[in-house]
Parts: sequence; structure tokens; C-alpha cells
Amino acid sequence: MNRAELFEQIKKKKSYLCVGLDTDLEKIPKHLRSLPDPVYEFNKQIIDATKEFSVAYKPNTAFYEALGASGWETLQKTLDYIPKDCFTIADAKRGDIGNTSALYARAFFEKLNFDALTVTPYMGEDSVKPFLNFSGKWVILLIHTSNSGSIDVQQLETRDGRFVYEEVIFASQRWTSADRMMYVVGATKADKIGTIRALAPDHFFLVPGVGTQGGDLEAVSKAGINAQCGLLVNSSRSIIYASSSEDFADAARNEASKVQQEMNEYLDKFIR
Amino acid sequence: MNRAELFEQIKKKKSYLCVGLDTDLEKIPKHLRSLPDPVYEFNKQIIDATKEFSVAYKPNTAFYEALGASGWETLQKTLDYIPKDCFTIADAKRGDIGNTSALYARAFFEKLNFDALTVTPYMGEDSVKPFLNFSGKWVILLIHTSNSGSIDVQQLETRDGRFVYEEVIFASQRWTSADRMMYVVGATKADKIGTIRALAPDHFFLVPGVGTQGGDLEAVSKAGINAQCGLLVNSSRSIIYASSSEDFADAARNEASKVQQEMNEYLDKFIR
Repeated sequence: MNRAELFEQIKKKKSYLCVGLDTDLEKIPKHLRSLPDPVYEFNKQIIDATKEFSVAYKPNTAFYEALGASGWETLQKTLDYIPKDCFTIADAKRGDIGNTSALYARAFFEKLNFDALTVTPYMGEDSVKPFLNFSGKWVILLIHTSNSGSIDVQQLETRDGRFVYEEVIFASQRWTSADRMMYVVGATKADKIGTIRALAPDHFFLVPGVGTQGGDLEAVSKAGINAQCGLLVNSSRSIIYASSSEDFADAARNEASKVQQEMNEYLDKFIR
Repeated sequence: MNRAELFEQIKKKKSYLCVGLDTDLEKIPKHLRSLPDPVYEFNKQIIDATKEFSVAYKPNTAFYEALGASGWETLQKTLDYIPKDCFTIADAKRGDIGNTSALYARAFFEKLNFDALTVTPYMGEDSVKPFLNFSGKWVILLIHTSNSGSIDVQQLETRDGRFVYEEVIFASQRWTSADRMMYVVGATKADKIGTIRALAPDHFFLVPGVGTQGGDLEAVSKAGINAQCGLLVNSSRSIIYASSSEDFADAARNEASKVQQEMNEYLDKFIR
């Protein structure tokens, strides 16, 4: 899915919601746990309940790897179940030397056919570029995350008076354009989103941390929305675990619908 | 395996060789490709041929993920086949926010029971600490890699006149000790190993890049060896692909034996 097609979906659904399929076997409703593949069953019902309100789905691979080989099959089945008009993101935070990154790219873009993969920039240009060799696929580069540990590397100040995460933005803009790369930008500080928007006016930002993690959707939207929306805001736990009972899918639907209604308002208000 | 036990193995085998099981289906000898699990068959024969000379094995997960769900099973079977007196490293370069890193830890330390996992530091302390909650398991933190992209983040100079990779060393030494953490340090510049050894006198370094990638084993050993050896030097392609014919295992054995003989010499010469 290219940038124009993604923007079309956003306008059609009046939403820039990404649902994080961070499905933990220990947190799903009890009545599902005796099924042959409870995580897949949970995901299916969550997808059915939220696809009207969500333009993207983002399984975090850790949740699937924690199940061993069968988790990888569950991930594959889940991906196959996501409707084709939704943007799919493997939140895997991969990155390795060139020939090894090329294998990760094959894993996520060929074997699994995701639209996008999150990538960590610590190893630099040649660790990221192999992911850009797959036509129509996206790299979503970790820039600035909202966890406390972001001070340890991302927020170090360089000799030139910039932060490390800013250096990553500048470097990555030499590697490819906003048509092939998005940025992960944490949401707990909306002013940071404004700062980064100024450095990257055209890029889509994948913003985790709204909902359970405490970001403010209006402030994030105001600071982040650009002419093509430019935002995918992820919610995981606040939607998928909205209820822990048999009504979990309905509860997820209600939660996703509420977020979508807010987003509809912000699209009108802030798009420019 | 703890640090003392690892050093015991090094003394016993007179070797600090780690064999990288970066097994690419497209590169293994043709006669294996019609078997039900050719990558496992290849790994088994490589392990049998090299276990006399090697104290550690390091599969890079990218090679297994590129095969899909069956690759994850191959990884599991390969790990189970590695003799218990060898140190096992999942070269996965993982790292995510706390609760997600905890799931990766479960995947590699419980489901798969590796001794150690490579971890990327870009998200900082809380992305690394969950891996330290597993007793007897090791984090091998990416510090300085030998690829060209290492200039983009790792070698940025901070306002305090240090490199980013040095800041990662200082920070990580506040999180845990040399009994629970090793460092990935690239080998193409041996002087860099000396610099990092001065900052981390006790830590084991996992050094990739000797062999195909062009590092010099003697220079690396001289700069890196400490009182408990403190080095695991990885070779992948130069050993596992020493021959592409039916004699691949013998060729791997010869290659591993040659490296071990060199290492025996350097252990005598440089241990201090």
C-alpha cells in the first residue's frame, strides 16, 4: 500500500487508528483458551470488531515468538485474516548487517507479506537499506520512543548540539523518502511530536502510547497531523483488552469506535 | 552457563571460537536440499564436525525466520542438538519496551532455552533490563559493530566528548555486571577492541567479523584477551561454507581446527 492509498483509506474511514495485536495468551478471555489456537481466535474477533474503525493493524512479534514455532503460524494466519484494505505492520524492531537484514526483509515482506516493518537504527545505513529493496514495502524507523530508557541513547546530545534521534532523522532522509519510510515517535510528550514534525514535514509517524501508555490524542493530533494526515496512532491494550469477558469483541468495537469519532473530529480540525 | 564455567570450557578446549550457524538454504550443499529439513541436517553435521574446537554456537535468527514457521522449529531442533557444554547465543538483536522485552526474554530463555541473547540498546535501560530477570542467562549488548553504518549512531560524538557507544558502555555498567552481560564489539579495527577493553576490563566481548568479514585474529586477541580470556570470536561463513560439496563437514572441521590452534597459541601468549 503506497502513501496515496493509505491516505485514501484514512479519508474513507475517517480514522488513523492502528490496532496493536499484542495478544498475550495469559490476558485473553478464559472461554477462548481451550480452543486449538486461542490467540488466532481472539485476533479474528478483534479484527472483525474493529476493521470498520481501523486503517492499520500492528502485531508485535514478541507476543508470537513467546509461543514458539506455533506462534509464528498464528502470526501468519492473523496476517492473512486482516482485510486487504488495511495497512499491516510487523512491529519487530529488527536490524542487522546488510546480508542479514536482507533475510529479515524476506521473512517479513515475502514469507509473511506485511506492508511495513519497524526497524531499529543502532547499526546505521547498511542495516536499514536492505529493507528498502522491496518495492511497495515500508520501513518504520525507531526515532524517539516514549519509554524512560529513551534518555540512554536517543536523547544524548551530540557535539553539534543535536539529539541522537535528530541525527537519525537527518541520516535516514538521505537513505530514502517519505514514500518509503515512516518514523516511530512516542506520544507521551506531544511537544516532541511537534519538534519532529518540523524536521520531517511529510513523513508518516507511527505513534504508540496513546491509551494505556498515557498519550493525549488531541495534543498528538494537533502537533502531528499534516496535509496527508501523516499519523497512524496505535492503541493496543485499551482496545483489545477493553473487556476480559465473553463480550470482549463488542467492548473492543466500542472502544475503537470512540477513538475513531475523536479522530474524525481532529482530521477536520487539524488537516492542513 | 556462568562466567567461571565458560572460562573452564575455554581452558579445556583451548579455544574461544564461536561458530555462527547462519545457515542459508541457498548456500548449503545441493545433496542436502532434498531432505525434509536440510538446514537442520546441515547444522547437525557442522556441530558434530566443530564441537571439539568450538566453545559456543550462535545461530542468527534472521536465517531461521526467513523460512517461516518451520524455520523456528529448525532453530529449536538445532539448539537442542548443541552439546550442553557449549555456550549458546541467539543472535536476534532484540529490544522493545519493558513488557515486550519480557516476552522476547521468554521466547529465547524459556521456550528456546538459549544461554544468551544479543540485544540492541537504542531504547535504553528499560528495554534491556527484562532480559536480566532470568537467572543464569546473559544479555550480549550491541556496542560497536564493524559495518559501515556504525558511523550513523554508534560513532556520533556527544557533547561530553564521548562516542555514543561509550555512553552505552557506561550506562549498561549501571544496569548489571560482567557476570550477566557481554558486549558485541566488531573486529575489523582491532584498536577499537583495545579502547573498549580499557572501558570494560572484565566483560566478555563477542567479536564477529573475523574470517570472511576481514578481522585479524591475532590483533583482536592481543587487544581483547583478559584474565578470563574475555573473548568469544565468531566465525560463520569461513567455517560453515568452507566447502560447498559433500565434504563440507570435513572442510568445516579443518577450518575450525586451524582457528582453534591459533587460539591456543594466543591464550598462552596474551592471557593476563
